[in-house]
Amino acid sequence: MPLEEHVLAGVERIAVLGVGLIGGSLALALRRAGYSGRIAGYSRRTAESERALALGVVDEAAATPAEAVAGADLVVLGVPPGAMPALMAQIAPTCAGQAVVTDVGSVKAAVVAAGEAQFGGRFIGAHPIAGKERHGVAAAEAGLFRHSRCVITPTATSDPRALDLVRALWAAAGCEVLEMPPAVHDEALAVTSHLPHLLAFALMEQFAAHPRSKELSRLTGGGFRDFSRIASSDPALWADIALQNREALLQAVQIYQQTLERFAEQLRQGDQAALAAGFARAKRARDAVLATHSCSKTGSKHDG
Amino acid sequence: MPLEEHVLAGVERIAVLGVGLIGGSLALALRRAGYSGRIAGYSRRTAESERALALGVVDEAAATPAEAVAGADLVVLGVPPGAMPALMAQIAPTCAGQAVVTDVGSVKAAVVAAGEAQFGGRFIGAHPIAGKERHGVAAAEAGLFRHSRCVITPTATSDPRALDLVRALWAAAGCEVLEMPPAVHDEALAVTSHLPHLLAFALMEQFAAHPRSKELSRLTGGGFRDFSRIASSDPALWADIALQNREALLQAVQIYQQTLERFAEQLRQGDQAALAAGFARAKRARDAVLATHSCSKTGSKHDG
Repeated sequence: MPLEEHVLAGVERIAVLGVGLIGGSLALALRRAGYSGRIAGYSRRTAESERALALGVVDEAAATPAEAVAGADLVVLGVPPGAMPALMAQIAPTCAGQAVVTDVGSVKAAVVAAGEAQFGGRFIGAHPIAGKERHGVAAAEAGLFRHSRCVITPTATSDPRALDLVRALWAAAGCEVLEMPPAVHDEALAVTSHLPHLLAFALMEQFAAHPRSKELSRLTGGGFRDFSRIASSDPALWADIALQNREALLQAVQIYQQTLERFAEQLRQGDQAALAAGFARAKRARDAVLATHSCSKTGSKHDG
Repeated sequence: MPLEEHVLAGVERIAVLGVGLIGGSLALALRRAGYSGRIAGYSRRTAESERALALGVVDEAAATPAEAVAGADLVVLGVPPGAMPALMAQIAPTCAGQAVVTDVGSVKAAVVAAGEAQFGGRFIGAHPIAGKERHGVAAAEAGLFRHSRCVITPTATSDPRALDLVRALWAAAGCEVLEMPPAVHDEALAVTSHLPHLLAFALMEQFAAHPRSKELSRLTGGGFRDFSRIASSDPALWADIALQNREALLQAVQIYQQTLERFAEQLRQGDQAALAAGFARAKRARDAVLATHSCSKTGSKHDG
């Protein structure tokens, strides 16, 4: 559908608060999709919003969140989940009564609760499952969301017009849009994203504490590098994400600990058949995940 | 150094027992380096050695291990570590008294002990830290070892001539050659390779057992795919490797369990500062590993 006939055609001003990798890539993707309205950006670090302006990612680098959202039809919050409530409170007085507010965070239940408390049905939570270990607007790219999925988490409170707009936003950015309740999203992402990040950080923490870590470095191959890639993610952001999804993540960690201990016990017992059977089940599960992606023609090189 | 002036120039026949990904890639790499002697291949599965012959990876598909090693100056064992002792016993009677015997396995102490018991100082353990999740000779490639490291594990028993030959073999294949005792290799690889494989298998085992694993698949991104890539490795081979390096691996697993539990406890306590500090240490450790590799101009996309 051409963008001019699109629900986004009525949007004259978009405010992106937190113009980093995700917010910046969304702005670029909308431009590429033909969005011709204004995009205002705000970042807590002035240098970052000025860089966004210099790179042509936004049309305007606002000095304050209020300045960015003034007159905006659509407000996209691209800050870490833990920083959302304060930012929402800050913009609420200047945010127009018709403006739709959405976010891009990796955790949904806590953010949606805060968003609905502040904006009612005009707040719609969203999470594009895309990213990479580099962050900041300099890493933004228009194609980041292509072949990716974006989860939108409406509730009974959601305003249908707001939901349509947020759906259209992510479709325009190139995503396949999925919908599910916030808690269902958080439970799933705890397993598919938050747990792997924690596991990769833990391996590298063990590595850091190893008495011969320098020599170990020379004995790593591509498997190690791929496994540990997500441990190069932003530490503060991921500590925030982990805590914002604490319950579901702790539940996933507990099951993981049991699974790993079962492998360890099979190793102690020298039970090669049991180990090989478990590894084979694991391999089949991974191959099935890959198949899901290739069937739907998605194969992003980025992480979520 | 041109290969004709090289220590390998005196080698007229090489036998590769187990012409899979690694053995096959070694044969191709030697050809590319200018080795002009004969390469005989044997695989337990006849189809595999016939495919190696058809692909031009070997000059000769031997019907038995004894036929392959007859008259060979250099014998390369490319079978899983647990299968080594039986294969060594099988070839010992026909293996010429001057032939140097080496292997390519991911575990060294157990294999070197078996090799020296059978061949004395003529056996030299080796482990090229390269690979990929695909296996079999069809996946072999001449460039697999370029920009990779190969660990050679001589002992006090090693014959200097045999050591020189194995060093020359891996240098010709394109590797940077490192030397260390077998136990030092095994302790390091437990952390850098065997543990990550176990962790990735455990995540996918948890995934397989999840009541909504199909829906989870749709909520995975590139981070998940990279983290879990090594869980697509050969399950039987990795169960064997894990058991052959059981003590060092169990030690690494124990430290990992403690590290993960420390993160889990910080999560329970809501200690965001401690989590962020640990994640930051982890990120620095990973960035340091990458730097080690880029300094030495190695950057293989493959795993070890």
